Amino acid sequence: MSSSAPQHPRPADGHRLWSVDEHLADVLGAVRPLEPIELQLLDAQGCVLVEDVTVPVALPPFDNSSMDGYAVRTADVQGASEEFPAVLTVVGDVAAGSGELPTVGPGEAARIMTGAPLPPGAEAVVPVEWTDGGTGGGAAAGMTPASAAPEQSGGEVRVHRAAEARAHVRARGSDVQAGDLALAAGTVLGPPQIALLAAIGRGTVRVRPRPRVVVLSTGSELVQPGEPLAAGTIYDSNSFALAAAARDAGAIAYRVGAVADDADTLRSTIEDQLIRADLLVTTGGVSVGAYDVVKEALSSIGSAGSTGPGDGDGDADVEVDATRIDFRKLAMQPGKPQGFGTIGPDHTPLLALPGNPVSSYVSFELFVRPAIRTLMGLPESEVRRPSVRAVLKADKALGSPAGRRQFLRGAYDAESGTVSPVGGSGSHLIAALAHADSLMVVPEDVTSVEPGTELEVVLLG
Amino acid sequence: MSSSAPQHPRPADGHRLWSVDEHLADVLGAVRPLEPIELQLLDAQGCVLVEDVTVPVALPPFDNSSMDGYAVRTADVQGASEEFPAVLTVVGDVAAGSGELPTVGPGEAARIMTGAPLPPGAEAVVPVEWTDGGTGGGAAAGMTPASAAPEQSGGEVRVHRAAEARAHVRARGSDVQAGDLALAAGTVLGPPQIALLAAIGRGTVRVRPRPRVVVLSTGSELVQPGEPLAAGTIYDSNSFALAAAARDAGAIAYRVGAVADDADTLRSTIEDQLIRADLLVTTGGVSVGAYDVVKEALSSIGSAGSTGPGDGDGDADVEVDATRIDFRKLAMQPGKPQGFGTIGPDHTPLLALPGNPVSSYVSFELFVRPAIRTLMGLPESEVRRPSVRAVLKADKALGSPAGRRQFLRGAYDAESGTVSPVGGSGSHLIAALAHADSLMVVPEDVTSVEPGTELEVVLLG
Repeated sequence: MSSSAPQHPRPADGHRLWSVDEHLADVLGAVRPLEPIELQLLDAQGCVLVEDVTVPVALPPFDNSSMDGYAVRTADVQGASEEFPAVLTVVGDVAAGSGELPTVGPGEAARIMTGAPLPPGAEAVVPVEWTDGGTGGGAAAGMTPASAAPEQSGGEVRVHRAAEARAHVRARGSDVQAGDLALAAGTVLGPPQIALLAAIGRGTVRVRPRPRVVVLSTGSELVQPGEPLAAGTIYDSNSFALAAAARDAGAIAYRVGAVADDADTLRSTIEDQLIRADLLVTTGGVSVGAYDVVKEALSSIGSAGSTGPGDGDGDADVEVDATRIDFRKLAMQPGKPQGFGTIGPDHTPLLALPGNPVSSYVSFELFVRPAIRTLMGLPESEVRRPSVRAVLKADKALGSPAGRRQFLRGAYDAESGTVSPVGGSGSHLIAALAHADSLMVVPEDVTSVEPGTELEVVLLG
Repeated sequence: MSSSAPQHPRPADGHRLWSVDEHLADVLGAVRPLEPIELQLLDAQGCVLVEDVTVPVALPPFDNSSMDGYAVRTADVQGASEEFPAVLTVVGDVAAGSGELPTVGPGEAARIMTGAPLPPGAEAVVPVEWTDGGTGGGAAAGMTPASAAPEQSGGEVRVHRAAEARAHVRARGSDVQAGDLALAAGTVLGPPQIALLAAIGRGTVRVRPRPRVVVLSTGSELVQPGEPLAAGTIYDSNSFALAAAARDAGAIAYRVGAVADDADTLRSTIEDQLIRADLLVTTGGVSVGAYDVVKEALSSIGSAGSTGPGDGDGDADVEVDATRIDFRKLAMQPGKPQGFGTIGPDHTPLLALPGNPVSSYVSFELFVRPAIRTLMGLPESEVRRPSVRAVLKADKALGSPAGRRQFLRGAYDAESGTVSPVGGSGSHLIAALAHADSLMVVPEDVTSVEPGTELEVVLLG
């Protein structure tokens, strides 16, 4: 019957059902994190660091002012008050970025800006609000822009309060010291991590890149959305849904249009796409029908499509002699027929999902998303969707087939810790999926779930 | 002192402190969702739908098979068993996408694939596993690919089990009916919603686009990461961190390199960028210093930079006569000095954040992120970061300044419902921020938080 399908790795057991966990373990066991590359900082957003990054230069790199004010010697302002201010000679401005610094001698002050280096001689900063701002008037609210009042970088300033040594001074290295570990290998780079890397001067960083995922749907019945439907045809939704889901998982997704049910066309399309794929995902054509073209094409691709390495004809043939796609049945609903293996000279992983839109989407969540996140090198805890326990809230019991793990569309309410079914159990209820936020999991040995029962719920999005 | 700054909207109250909530309300009150545009489906991922989308054609669009098997008349298979099979003449194949369908007469069957239209005359589908698959042997496990065994679309099939009317038939419209509401205006388009839109044939969809956010940092002390540091300089981290954070919030971010503290340069840079900005974010130069160039430049841009609409000189001058940026002090730490207003002929919103990396990041989270998400048209509940209540776990009490809402970096543990401080309270602790996952909020009227106290915690990322 299925003589053209590749041999099951355990031939004696060729028709057994695989459990969801076995299939996932098989997939994740074969998928390795991508080789790291050096990326510009912003290109590395969302990626996983593969090196321990140490701090090359202390932060802040020099003692600097935490306020806009005046850099002073503490002895000069000792006992100062509004009534009896300390009157100091302003020897110049120290703006952020100043290279040459004035020296602050006894009886002198330098006007200093937030972030500017503490000039030699100065021991503390008094905020401008503690002074007359050089105006000879009362307490200042701020400084006039230097461009409008250049004379205020000289003259005199009256200081109304004393300052202790190091007051309003951020010490060199008070954030991080040179040699400290800034970020450990394995860190996921979000905005605050990018902030730290930039702050310590890293313009590029070594990370695992985003996986490039090629998504193609198969089926002669598939029509591109926006085009008219002929008799017997439906719209292709899988390639759109899974490309979106792949991006959502962190991948760079390439959507290939629907491919008709012809093994040669499919084979050459896949061979073409291999060059830009770290992972291939197909939908449809994996069941027991006479036109299940994915099964047909990937069963023969190794023998028919290639003459092995170094055939020397110089054309664009892709070597696909390393194809090993295993088609199997899973003890789950929806999503019973699945294919998984590697293809082509680089042993690119390929997941062949069923064609029904809900089946393919659920399969993506359960198997493809973890594969993508494993390629990214994400930590174990971030590979799979989080799941919670919730109490079923429903009018009647949910039926579920014996021996199959069922995934039903649910609406989870965190407040009450409950989950309610959305739509029925038919695997074609794409409308219900669009209104669900979770998948309710009914274990293999359960055939009926009464309202009030606690269930595992996989949270989507 | 601050005579060159624009007038506060409530001049009599010019030096008062704004609360965090007042400032946020002011920002969100001035920001309007972007005008919707029609986008290709995959370009609309993450965007908000602005139209109610109704179903133009029922799903599935025709009665179709849910199994690979044989389309039969129920009377023909009544009482069939493995011992006494019904023997039917196979009149042809019905593959998915078949336009012309064979008619199934009495004593006849059509081989049918999952998703293929139920042919005229047939009333039910029997799965291939309930038959001999046309081989004359025992129960079939599946079909042989049609390309390998074309003769199996003819001949005879033995059916081993009876089928009720409509068995394994998915009825036209059983998922959605034409005219049903598929998705309501306001829906955020994730992968399952994109799946539904594609399934009902929508190639494009009307949504609010992602906001284009221009991020620029200011400061003559700023050096691009990767370049050598001269005396008194530090690395620019804000433009990287906030560009990443803007993308994280859903925006398209344009990072402009650091701009030196020169009002003319800053002004012309901002004028240049207006063309591609739905929102401008600057960092630095908003305090009371003599080189606080953002304040200086944006206070004068309206009068100096423009001659009003239609000056007719034909050059690339941007009309910036509509600039109204208000600089104010907030009752918060970090992040006291802030600017907000609109700029240029399109009244583009501009948020001027303080220059300290942690201050600018916290300010972004509190004010810019909600502004971006308001521009996107996201529902109220998704505009702000979620927050939870958690119990402080610390060695000693946390100090906080009176009259200021303090935001401290925290590590939240959902399991135990606790939050622990990460690093100290210094606003320059960028290293601590990179290891925090949340912000602990200490209210204005609290100056000390004992361990064991319950706090509001804003969850980041």
